[in-house]
Amino acid sequence: MAASCHLKPLSCVAVCGGTHGNEMSGIYLAKHWLRDPMELQRSSFAVTPFLGNPRAIEKCVRYVGQDLNRTFTTEFLSSTEVEDEPYEVVLAREINQTYGPKGSAQAFDFMFDLHNTTASMGTYLIVDSEESLLPMHMCHYIQMHYTRSPCPIYLYKLPGEETYSINSVAKAGLALELGPQPQQVVRADLFSQMRDIIACALDFIELFNKGTVFPAFEIEAYKITGRMDYPCYPDGEISAMVHPKLQDKDFLPLNPRDPIFQTFSGEEILYEGNTTIYPAFINEAAYYKKKVAFVKMEKHTFSIPALSSSRVA
Amino acid sequence: MAASCHLKPLSCVAVCGGTHGNEMSGIYLAKHWLRDPMELQRSSFAVTPFLGNPRAIEKCVRYVGQDLNRTFTTEFLSSTEVEDEPYEVVLAREINQTYGPKGSAQAFDFMFDLHNTTASMGTYLIVDSEESLLPMHMCHYIQMHYTRSPCPIYLYKLPGEETYSINSVAKAGLALELGPQPQQVVRADLFSQMRDIIACALDFIELFNKGTVFPAFEIEAYKITGRMDYPCYPDGEISAMVHPKLQDKDFLPLNPRDPIFQTFSGEEILYEGNTTIYPAFINEAAYYKKKVAFVKMEKHTFSIPALSSSRVA
Repeated sequence: MAASCHLKPLSCVAVCGGTHGNEMSGIYLAKHWLRDPMELQRSSFAVTPFLGNPRAIEKCVRYVGQDLNRTFTTEFLSSTEVEDEPYEVVLAREINQTYGPKGSAQAFDFMFDLHNTTASMGTYLIVDSEESLLPMHMCHYIQMHYTRSPCPIYLYKLPGEETYSINSVAKAGLALELGPQPQQVVRADLFSQMRDIIACALDFIELFNKGTVFPAFEIEAYKITGRMDYPCYPDGEISAMVHPKLQDKDFLPLNPRDPIFQTFSGEEILYEGNTTIYPAFINEAAYYKKKVAFVKMEKHTFSIPALSSSRVA
Repeated sequence: MAASCHLKPLSCVAVCGGTHGNEMSGIYLAKHWLRDPMELQRSSFAVTPFLGNPRAIEKCVRYVGQDLNRTFTTEFLSSTEVEDEPYEVVLAREINQTYGPKGSAQAFDFMFDLHNTTASMGTYLIVDSEESLLPMHMCHYIQMHYTRSPCPIYLYKLPGEETYSINSVAKAGLALELGPQPQQVVRADLFSQMRDIIACALDFIELFNKGTVFPAFEIEAYKITGRMDYPCYPDGEISAMVHPKLQDKDFLPLNPRDPIFQTFSGEEILYEGNTTIYPAFINEAAYYKKKVAFVKMEKHTFSIPALSSSRVA
């Protein structure tokens, strides 16, 4: 990586709540900001709040036809309208028109996307990869200035995988994921944490736009390496639960031969990998359908070069 | 009340999981028992496990048409089949035929009903009223013998209200409610607690059937007095969340002028009642639709007379 990078100041920033229609912190925050946008205001850029999946929000479900946050791929975005296609495919093209198009010069400079999980992951920051310079600096700034809880970084893109999330429509993005919070529930504590982290991130953008130079740093982050499915009976029904010793242990080391599942009959199933991993999304409600009991991660330290804005004369 | 009561031994007992199709402890327990019923076996009575709402379980939602656990009233049970009636009304009549009819001599002697809540209520026992002698003795037995967590008693029937829950079809019943657990999630710890409490309750029935005399006792229980709705905007959307100081404080005293809500703009709303109450179901996901932010309860001490079985010669 270069020793120092210059990026253009940001002018258009979007904040999305309700990409998943039953994750309530972001939904009520976005609705609040749509009623009263004052607290999003900064002097050097504009912030647009919006609701990601209005029909799913109305029904208070994750999605209506298919997961919106997996629909921002070239395949879906470049598809032509056909009859009976899932609502979210139509919606993704519309969002891409408004805040993108993805990969184009007209795209929004930055998009925040607000999520909750039923897993005990605390407050964490999702970036596509460590190569996304501005988001990595933003995470570093949040970790230093938002001290109410640690905010680990989760790098979600598998090697070679195309970005598929809603904020990939903008030039850069950051997703917040706060938990544990049941679906369809809003907890005041997580609501205020999410609000404060967004305020902190907007402050970072303001400083960046106004010419602050952010020095290089080293930072720890968790990088996804794969996913672990539930054990199943031959009929496809799950035959085991997340082991009580693994439950609520997101971001903590899982070593070879540690228990990971307990069958309904009471037997233990051990982790058969050869190396220590760091699980996340342990026992997330929405992931039963996706056949994911937890996500496997490795912990790495990355060197991030300095950043400043290349101010337009 | 009489100083001592004699009741007939129980011969037919049912255990229902999945009355609500997204409360997973009872669903996976019932499915497990349907595969392997051995652990339910006792010498003096038969236990039948069953799934309450199969279509809701299939879809992993609380219900398909209307809340099954509010459908066991005379109005619904005595209705004649009409086109396009909600699935749960048809289902309630079927369950009433199999395990009832409600109020008849042919009805099952006892029905357990297994639930989860997203509220931080721990493990508690739901009985219609303190006048249900056998369930109150069962609760007392559980409180003395199941020591892993306190098991407060929740008396759910408002004065003059008809019973409406699934276990009202049997001659007597007990519902278990364990939380917090998100909808659509099974936690191994709550699963094993629910299984152990059922085992303990079956042991109680076995002792009762075999002639054990259960002496009179005094017992504390929480009795519902009303419900508290969320504050709303004029369009009906909620305008406030459960206050962080009330969140997770189920069964603890709430005093006049204690904060109960926090608006999305940050203002506090205080409790305006005149007496101390004990809230339950605080921030339960399924109750937003029912306009219930929490249930109001009073704490009482009841004198329960002795109980023994009137053994058939």
